[in-house]
This record gives sequence, structure tokens and C-alpha cells, in this order.
Amino acid sequence: MSAVSEHTIEDLDRLFRPRSVAVIGASATPTKIGGLPIAFLLAQGFEGPIFPINPKASEVQGLKAYTRIGEVAGQVDLAIVAVPAALVDQAVDDAIAADVKGIVLFSSGFAEISEEGRLAQDALMARARAAGVRILGPNCLGFMNLSEKVFATFSPVVGQGVTPKGRIGLISQSGAYGAYAFTLARQRGLGLSYWITTGNEGNVDFADCLSWLARDPDTDVILGYMEGCRDGRKLEAALAAARAAGKPVVMTKVGRTDIGAQAAASHTAALAGEDAVFDAVFRQYGVYRAYSIEEFFDVGYAFSVAGIPGGENLGVFTVSGGAGVLMADAAADEGLALPELNQQAQDRIRELVPFAAPRNPVDITGQITNDIGLFETSLDIMLEQGDYHLVAAFLAAAGQGPMGEHIAEQIGRVRDRYPDRVFCAVSVFKEPVRALLERNRCLAFEDPTRAIRALSALAWFARQRQKPAVPVDSRGASVTLRTGSYSEADSFQLLADFGVPVPESHLVADGVEAQARVAQDSRAWVAKIASPDILHKSDIGGVRLNLRGAEAVGQASDEVLAAARRACPEARIDGVLLSPMEEQGVECIVGVQRDPAFGPVVMLGLGGVLVEVLKDVSFRSAPLNRDMAMDMINELRGRAILDGVRGQPPADIGALAGLLVKVSHFAVAAGDSLESLDINPVRVRAEGRGVVALDALVIGR
Amino acid sequence: MSAVSEHTIEDLDRLFRPRSVAVIGASATPTKIGGLPIAFLLAQGFEGPIFPINPKASEVQGLKAYTRIGEVAGQVDLAIVAVPAALVDQAVDDAIAADVKGIVLFSSGFAEISEEGRLAQDALMARARAAGVRILGPNCLGFMNLSEKVFATFSPVVGQGVTPKGRIGLISQSGAYGAYAFTLARQRGLGLSYWITTGNEGNVDFADCLSWLARDPDTDVILGYMEGCRDGRKLEAALAAARAAGKPVVMTKVGRTDIGAQAAASHTAALAGEDAVFDAVFRQYGVYRAYSIEEFFDVGYAFSVAGIPGGENLGVFTVSGGAGVLMADAAADEGLALPELNQQAQDRIRELVPFAAPRNPVDITGQITNDIGLFETSLDIMLEQGDYHLVAAFLAAAGQGPMGEHIAEQIGRVRDRYPDRVFCAVSVFKEPVRALLERNRCLAFEDPTRAIRALSALAWFARQRQKPAVPVDSRGASVTLRTGSYSEADSFQLLADFGVPVPESHLVADGVEAQARVAQDSRAWVAKIASPDILHKSDIGGVRLNLRGAEAVGQASDEVLAAARRACPEARIDGVLLSPMEEQGVECIVGVQRDPAFGPVVMLGLGGVLVEVLKDVSFRSAPLNRDMAMDMINELRGRAILDGVRGQPPADIGALAGLLVKVSHFAVAAGDSLESLDINPVRVRAEGRGVVALDALVIGR
Repeated sequence: MSAVSEHTIEDLDRLFRPRSVAVIGASATPTKIGGLPIAFLLAQGFEGPIFPINPKASEVQGLKAYTRIGEVAGQVDLAIVAVPAALVDQAVDDAIAADVKGIVLFSSGFAEISEEGRLAQDALMARARAAGVRILGPNCLGFMNLSEKVFATFSPVVGQGVTPKGRIGLISQSGAYGAYAFTLARQRGLGLSYWITTGNEGNVDFADCLSWLARDPDTDVILGYMEGCRDGRKLEAALAAARAAGKPVVMTKVGRTDIGAQAAASHTAALAGEDAVFDAVFRQYGVYRAYSIEEFFDVGYAFSVAGIPGGENLGVFTVSGGAGVLMADAAADEGLALPELNQQAQDRIRELVPFAAPRNPVDITGQITNDIGLFETSLDIMLEQGDYHLVAAFLAAAGQGPMGEHIAEQIGRVRDRYPDRVFCAVSVFKEPVRALLERNRCLAFEDPTRAIRALSALAWFARQRQKPAVPVDSRGASVTLRTGSYSEADSFQLLADFGVPVPESHLVADGVEAQARVAQDSRAWVAKIASPDILHKSDIGGVRLNLRGAEAVGQASDEVLAAARRACPEARIDGVLLSPMEEQGVECIVGVQRDPAFGPVVMLGLGGVLVEVLKDVSFRSAPLNRDMAMDMINELRGRAILDGVRGQPPADIGALAGLLVKVSHFAVAAGDSLESLDINPVRVRAEGRGVVALDALVIGR
Repeated sequence: MSAVSEHTIEDLDRLFRPRSVAVIGASATPTKIGGLPIAFLLAQGFEGPIFPINPKASEVQGLKAYTRIGEVAGQVDLAIVAVPAALVDQAVDDAIAADVKGIVLFSSGFAEISEEGRLAQDALMARARAAGVRILGPNCLGFMNLSEKVFATFSPVVGQGVTPKGRIGLISQSGAYGAYAFTLARQRGLGLSYWITTGNEGNVDFADCLSWLARDPDTDVILGYMEGCRDGRKLEAALAAARAAGKPVVMTKVGRTDIGAQAAASHTAALAGEDAVFDAVFRQYGVYRAYSIEEFFDVGYAFSVAGIPGGENLGVFTVSGGAGVLMADAAADEGLALPELNQQAQDRIRELVPFAAPRNPVDITGQITNDIGLFETSLDIMLEQGDYHLVAAFLAAAGQGPMGEHIAEQIGRVRDRYPDRVFCAVSVFKEPVRALLERNRCLAFEDPTRAIRALSALAWFARQRQKPAVPVDSRGASVTLRTGSYSEADSFQLLADFGVPVPESHLVADGVEAQARVAQDSRAWVAKIASPDILHKSDIGGVRLNLRGAEAVGQASDEVLAAARRACPEARIDGVLLSPMEEQGVECIVGVQRDPAFGPVVMLGLGGVLVEVLKDVSFRSAPLNRDMAMDMINELRGRAILDGVRGQPPADIGALAGLLVKVSHFAVAAGDSLESLDINPVRVRAEGRGVVALDALVIGR
């Protein structure tokens, strides 16, 4: 059982929405760690009581101070602990005794520095858990609740000003990164509801915060910065909760590349899962993954200002042909649709400006400088006649001058007429223009490419949330595997029990038995050595293909046995497996790998060079439903091969999806007893003719 | 002969560096097209005489006005023409008569609107060319020379302020885009030397401006925005000039994607070349291609502030582990090397901060807030012990406060000790800090990913300029092809004359002759139908492989002839081509396609699904040298296949490069008489065993 089951999500209410705050280790100096939160709470106007705890002072920053937290008369919801590591045990025990429900533990010197520190942290957390107290930290920068002005942090960035109160909740596993992100958000004027750093995650972890924000009425959009995750299933449950609440999640996860992951391992106490698995889980739950902090905020901004569009059709309005093309290029890169305006609408645009390019992008040219009203008129034509869910308008430098305000007003009016569309203006803005646009729920971007990327993220999310919910866990049959490799025949049997199509096969002891078995059968046959100890059968001459006639099958069987005995004298040999030759098709690789954080993860790749050279594979965390399996197939770069190239017929994609789902059910049923499964190859026959696993290897843990 | 040969590059001096300016169509209203340049020249302090030309005024904006340009007593270097299209002929003729050498023609209503306009434009340009006068435009926003304060533009953006004088020259084919870019440059404080828009390019085109800036002593870095190009060879010569001058060129070329190119075709009068060809030419001449305006300026900024590094090793300093990993991820994406710090240096970092992660990224942790001097000390250790050409320092929010100035001073001192390194600070900056950093030639970025991308661009350019110069044109044999398809045998002969290895082959009339020809030969043979009219021989049963023995060869030859006569009764048939079976290897596709702007372009792809499904191909404009051929090979995503996968030996890459070079020589020799060449497949044998063209089809124009 994981820690979450001992707490309820409601426990976090008193941590993140406290009505009273004590600071243990309170300092009279407002620039010290124990002084900063008091200074922030006072300066920002927290409305509840603040209780400084300091054995040597009777007053701290103008507030009455207490020797110990036990002396405070009223209820203390939240205790901030800002004492050196050596004093933390006492402070936490005092807080527990004083019946606090939430603790923010700034102190460092625990799991992040040594094994000894980890043990001390574990012991501390065990006491807190037993008492039902939630702890954020240790080794964290704390959190801010911007709507209720709870500044439970010692990050000096707050002293330089805070972001507006808004509807974006930000969670960061790193304090320094969180502080930097907060500064950027402030600079961009992004409104936050919560800012939370999780540090060592001794008790409250990233997934807890995510689940809580998914329920929080003040939060519409969740931005997360992750370095690793210990309990993948818990993270999945949190992502499912955010998805169910309709709240977009934008995630930056570092350690994507090998070199990045090496760097991560050298500094983080968390166990990093395989990045490809994170990526698969993010896709699975409709999480938008951002690859830079710029994208992180661009997309978060777009979600918070514009909301979710009804589809993926983009209309581009421009006053510069070149910028229109640039945006069309970017839209094509992002997979957005740019449907052409109908002829009637094109004619109307040409009536306004004879030299306009009216298709989409609608290039109204520099004529806009002579008649600013062309903007509103053109937008109206585009929206009346074209089915555009998203509209991007490139206005060159017009956002600077007095024209900017006219334009913002025009957009406001068009938005009132088309309230369900997403609008984005691209220009160089002076501040009042930007604010006016955003008040009209129109995005304001200075870079055309970034604007298109953000619109594409909104469209992507719109598509994701139309998908049926993801199965978080499966019920059903359970299988317990023994340790070690299973033979091909046994592997086939395990898969066949879950409905995975496997070849007709006959296990025979030798050539004589082989000859007898196929005597009445005119098909072509394959003979393979059957041994749990021989994994790469082809390499040792243990596979013979295309055998016709009983005599040939018998002779090949004997040769395969001899080759195996020669190459692997120690191997246990069960005999020879005979199967009919398979018909033509596309070869795929399907596998399952046990991930330490997320459990069984299903992999799909196309056979041959695509998987070997280009690493063209896709992943999902098991179990899968049919939509997820189709997503896996569609994510392959070589996807078109399944549609039939070089005169081949289209492959049976539906059957491949079915196989993936069944394999995932097997993986979930085998659970922690499964180390890995390889089906290599899966032959995908022509459409309507199904799939078959041509080789299989199950390994138990 | 192209237009360039009739002018010299020096002619542009009087256009872009005039000592006197006349404005034909001068207006007393400083917001009108004919008034704006005068207002700008006056406000910005142009030092030479300004001559307003206006038949109805004796004074314009406080300057003495002239009825016609012929009345001006002194020399007029530059005439700005700001009259309606109908009056342009007269204005240009007057200017020619007055012996001006350069004209900026704002007026629109020419090639961009109709065929009639194009004819008028052509006639006008012919007169100017005959008179030796260079014209920028028509339909352009003009240019600015920021060091000599020549504001020959009517773009209102100048009225809102100008960029600092600097060393970046910016050329834009689009006026609106140029104005927008100018505003962004001003907002970012980027220093420009020239800003030039080329409009319809009736006379002075993008390549002219590029060549001129390549020689201009005030310009170090050239930023270009392109939509299309009519004379590819001229562009190549200009890029070669910039390369020879050691000036980095950063280019945005729109119309990359099909949908983008469609949009481009709908608005631009220029003929857009295939985008893949542009891309190849840019690579060929070491041009950095930017995919967004943000990248365009980021890279331009980096070149102008930091210069070119000596190599590609990146050292990352960070105060946040997570940001360090993010930057390591980005560096891995960009292909930068992150060599680990040596043990001694790691030990010294750990002495400073016991919990630091000292490998690279060097994560000094939040300790920096307790001891700001750690920054300089760590950088010194990194640069003394590690061979880092580039150093990126992530400083979280420290660029904001007073710490920011300390940090800038520390970087200044380290830079003095290591003047040949490139430094980049990443933080959220207050303005004095940014200026201080840039004065110390340290880049200042707010986004870690953008910082790494810019550093990577510098490293990329450093690598490009070490390559030997590109052959702009080849001398040598010339071949004139006839129109239409050549037979396989004739195609082989054409290629063989240029040293391309082709199979041993024997043309025979029928099975009897075939049998006689191979009677004494024990090798396996291939028989193929020989006909100039049958392009896809396999499809009609016109190819038979692996024939052993004279009888089999003879029979197959007859069968191939029969199949061809059956399938293509109209085809001319030369007989049957016999070749020995080729040994194993990797199959490639090599082709040449004639591009309307750039002439013959060589293509390379890997055979099979990689080229068909993934479009994994690379291009270069002919002729190639060996380095360029190696670049083509290395650009293939499936490059690893040539190194040997699935137990195959490495392929003879050197021989493949040689074949590409020879094919390019053939293409140049055939010149405009070559429509296309396909060699499909080229068999690349194991290393040391060469290559051979297994099939070839030459088509003459």
C-alpha cells in the first residue's frame, strides 16, 4: 500500500488553505529564512493569525512570539518549520503535539545529502504519518496560496513582487527552478492560484499536489515541473483526476536525453523512470509536454486566457504575405488544419481589397494602414463563412501605436459575436493594448511561431479530451509467473490464454515424429528448436523455413536438433516446434517491460531498420483500451508502412490494435511477476486477415 | 547572362551610402509617403543635402523644394521616388537624366498586381539598366543606413524610434515583415548597420544586397528574410562571398511546407524554388536557417555580441539541478558536447560546496546565495581544467537584484582571463545587468533552451567555416543531351564517361546470343530488357535475377523479350542486357533534378522504406566536392544503416561519396540539357569494395 491510502486528499486543505500559521524558528530579521515568511505574510496581508515561535524572543517583526508552539492558545492549521536539521525532530514533534494538520519543512540535510539523512527523514515521516499530519518537504522552498495570501516560503523572489492572483496552479519539484519560474510568470503578468515546491517529497509528493489542484475551485490550469517519480500509479491517478476535472495539465519533465538523465541522476534524490515511459503516460492522460520553459508558460498562458477551442481548424489573417506563409508553415509543422475560405467569402475579401490573397491565410496587405476597419470586416467574413475554431491575426507592428487600441476593440466586438472561438493577435504590443486584448480573452503573442504553437496546444487538448477515459487499472484474471525464461511454446500458451493469436504449432521430439505429424499436410512448414535456454534461435541455425513435404520437414527437424546440441550443449531441449509458413504481411515488434515506477509498459515498433536504426517505437502504460492502442500505432513515424507501400495491401491495423490490448491485459494480470515479454515478430496480415505472434518470449521475475 | 554582370557591386555604394538625397513626390505632410522620408532624414540627422522635389511647392518641411530633379544644382546620389504608379516613368526618367546613380522606388502597382504591371516594370527596368542606374523596388519600403543616418523609407516604425547603430545588416524581401522585424530589433536593443527591403526586385535583388553587405565594413552579421529567388546561382555567389568574408548569415525562408508554399504562391510575384533545394544551398554555404523570427534574432544577437567560438564543447554552470538537466537535454538535442570535468576539478568544486554535483552541468546549488563569489571561483575551475569553448550559466532569478551586477562583474573578470571563450548568462534580468553583461561580451538570455540553441548555432557556424570552400562552378567537359529518355545502356555509358562505376554488361539480341555470350562464365547473371521506352522494367516482368548456366540465361532472355513485347507492343527494344549478379550491400537512390532557380540538384536517399515512407533524403546543388558529399550522407536520418546493422559489415561510404561527386560533375557538364537522372539503386558494397550503379535513367530536356 502506498502512503496515499493513509491520508485523504482533504488533509491537504488545512496545509494549503490554512486559517492560521505558526513559524517555528521565527526570526526578527526579515531577510533570514525564519524571518522571510513572516515578512511576506505581513506584507501581502494574510488575514489569519501568525504565531512566531522563538524560544529567545517575546516579539518578532511586531508580532507576539511564543517559546514553543504548544503555548499558542488557538488552533494552528499550518506550521512552517525553519530550523536547522538537528532541531527538526523536536520542532515536528511539538507541532504534532499541538495538533497542527499541515507542516511545511524548509530544512535541508536529509535524503538529498546522504543515506543517513534518508533514514532520519524516513523516521520523521513515519511519525508524522502515524499522527495524520501532512508534511511538504523537507528541503523545499514551501508554497504560496495567492488567493488567500498564504506565503509559506522563504524564496526571496516574493520580496521583489508577486504575480497577479489568477487561475494557474504551478507545482515544481525543484525550488530554484520554481523561484525562477515564479519570476518569469510575474514578468509576463501570468496570474497564479498556487505555487508549490515539493523538495524531497518525504510525505506530500507531486502527485498529491496535482490531485489536490485538480479539485481546487481556484485553479483551472495546472503547470508542473518534474524531475522524477517514485509511484507511477499514483501519478497516473492524479493525472486522471485532472483530466476528469477538465483541467489542462502542462508538464516539463527534465532528463529527456541520456546526457540529461545522467545529469539528473547526479543531483536528484528521486528515482527517475525511463523518459519514454513518462512521455507515454503524458500522452495517455492528455498532458501537454513542454520542452522549454518558454513553451511551458506560452501554453499555460493560452489555456488560462483563451480556454479550449471546439476543433482544430485555423484561420490566419495577416497584413504581410510573408508572415502569413511563416504561420502557415508553423501550422503545418504542428498539424493544424488550414481550410481554404469558400469562394463567396474570397470574393467578398477581394471586393474589399482587390489585390488581397483571400484563401487562408487571408492577406489583406498593407491596405490596413489606409482603412483600419478592414480588420473587423475581414474577421467577420472569415468567421461567418469559414469553420475556423482558432483565428490568428498577424498585425505587424500595429500593436504599438493608437491603431493597437482600435484593433483590440475590433477583436472585442468580433469575440462577442463568436464567443466560442479562440483568438490570437500577433504584433509588437504596448502594454495597454495587450491588457485590452486579454480582457477580451484574445491571446497576445509577439512571435508568430510561438503563437501557432500555443494555438496548436489548445487544439491538441481539445482532441485529447474527446477521447474516452483511460483505464487506470484492470480487473480480471491474475497469473503468477515463475522466475526465468519461458520456452516459446509456453510463452505462446500464456498469450493464447489472453486471446493473443499464436501460430498453429506441434511440438515433436525428432525427425521421425515430425515426418509423421505432417505426412497428410501439403502446406509449407517452419521448424524451430524448442528450448527455454536458447533465446536467439536463428543465430545458431535453429530455424528452418519454407519446408515442403514430410521428408524435408523430418530432415530439417533433425538438423535443427543437431545444430542446437552443437551450439548450446548445456541447453534443455524440448524438441522441435513445427508451424505452417505464415502468409506475407508487415512485421512489428510488440513488447512489455516492467518499469520501476509505472509497472508494465507496452511497446510497439515496426520491424526491421525502423526500430533498429531509427528507434521508431511507441509506449503506453498497461492496461490499454482500443483507442490507446490506435494512438500507439498512429504515433509511429513509419505508420504509412501499415497502409501499404510498394504495392502491398493495407495491413490489418484493427487486429494489431486488438493484439496490443490483449497483450496489455496479460501484462496487468501477470503484474509484478512479469519482468518482460517480447513478441518479435508480430506478423500483421492484409486487412481483414488478422495478426499472429510468430515468436514470443516471456520472462518472469 | 544575368543582370548582375551589367552592374558592378560598387554601383550599390551610391545607392546605400549616398551623400545627397532627393525625394521625388516630396510632401509637406510628414505622415504621408512622400513626407515620411524627409521627416526621418531631418529628425535622425542625415548630414548631406536633402532635395524635396514637388512641382507645387517652393518649400517642404523647411527645406527648399525643386519643381524637377533636373533643377538641383549639386550631385544627387540617391533619388527616392514616392509618386503614384502612373507618374513613375517620368520620375525615373528625370532622375536618370539628372545623373543619379541610385533610386529607391516606393511606388506599387507593378509586377505584384498584374501581367500588365509586370510589363511596365520590365520596360522601366530596361531603361534604368541601360543608363547604369540601380533601382531598389518597386513596391518596397526602402532602406535605412543606420551609421550614416540615411532613412530612405516610409515605414512609420521609424517614427516610434530606431534601433541602436550596430553591426547586423538585415535584408527582407517583404516590407511588412521587415517593419515588424525592425520593431522587434528595437525592442530587444539589437544594433543594426543596414535595414533593406527589396520589394519586387526589379533590379536590385536580395543577392545583390547580400553581396554588398558581405563587403560592407560596418556589417559583421547578415540576417535575411526570403520568400523566393529567381537566380539561384547569383544567390549562391552572394552566399559564397559572405562565407569568404567570414560573416555569418542567418536566414528565414518561408514556404517550407506544402501548405506554406501554397500560401506563398498566392501572394508573391517571385518564383519560389523547391524548399528542400533552398535548404541544401543554405547548408552548403554554412547559412544558419532560422525557423522562427525569435530564433532569427536570438542567433543574430549571439553572433553580434559573442562572436564565433573555437569549438563545440559546452560547460554548464547552474544553481539549480533541474535547470542544469533541462540545459543538458537541450544541448543533447542540438548535438553539443558536454564533456565531463576532470576528477581534480570535480574535487575542487566539492571542496567549495560538499553537496555540489560537479561533473558538468556543475550544480553549485543554492549555496550561491550564501557566497556569491562561488560563481567566479567555479567558472575559473571549469575553464582552467575543462576544455570548454562555450559556457552557459543558469543563475535562476539572480539577474534581478543587486546580485546581478556582482555576477556581471565576475563574468567580466573571467572573460578577461579567457578572451576566446563564449559566455552566456541565463536569468531574469533587470536592464543595467543585461547591459553590463553585453558590454563584457557575455550573452544574456532569459530562457535556458533558447540560450542553448543560440550557443549551438555559434558552434555550428564554427564547424561550417572550417570546411573547405564550396565549388561555385565547375569547369571541364561539356555534354549536350538530346531530348527524352536514354536507354539503360546509354545512360550507363554517359555516367561511365564521368567515372561512375556501372555494371559489366553485355547487350544481346536474343536467347541464342545470350547463351553464347555467357557460355564460358560460371557466375550468376541478371537479364534485363533493354529499351528506352520501358522505364519500370520489373513491373512488366522485364528483369530476371540469379541465372546460373548458359541455358538458363538464354531462356530467361527470351522470356524477358516476350514479356516486354506483350506488355509494351509499341516500345523500341534494343535487346537484352546481361550483367553478373551483384554482391550484397546497402541500396541507395541517387538522383539529379533540374531546379528552375538553382540548376542541377543532386539527391541522395537510402533505398526501401526509408526513402518511400520517411522521405529520408538529402540534397545539394551541383557540383559537389567530397566534403559536401559526406555532408549529404551524414544528413540522412538512416545514416547508421551504412555503418552496418543486423550483422552487416560497414558499407563503403567513401566510394558512395565519390559516386555523388562524379554524378554532380556529369550534371554540371550536361547543364541545362539535363532534365533528370535517376540511379536506383546504387549498390554500396562492404567497405573497400566500392559502389555500383545498378540501374540508371537519364532524361534530356
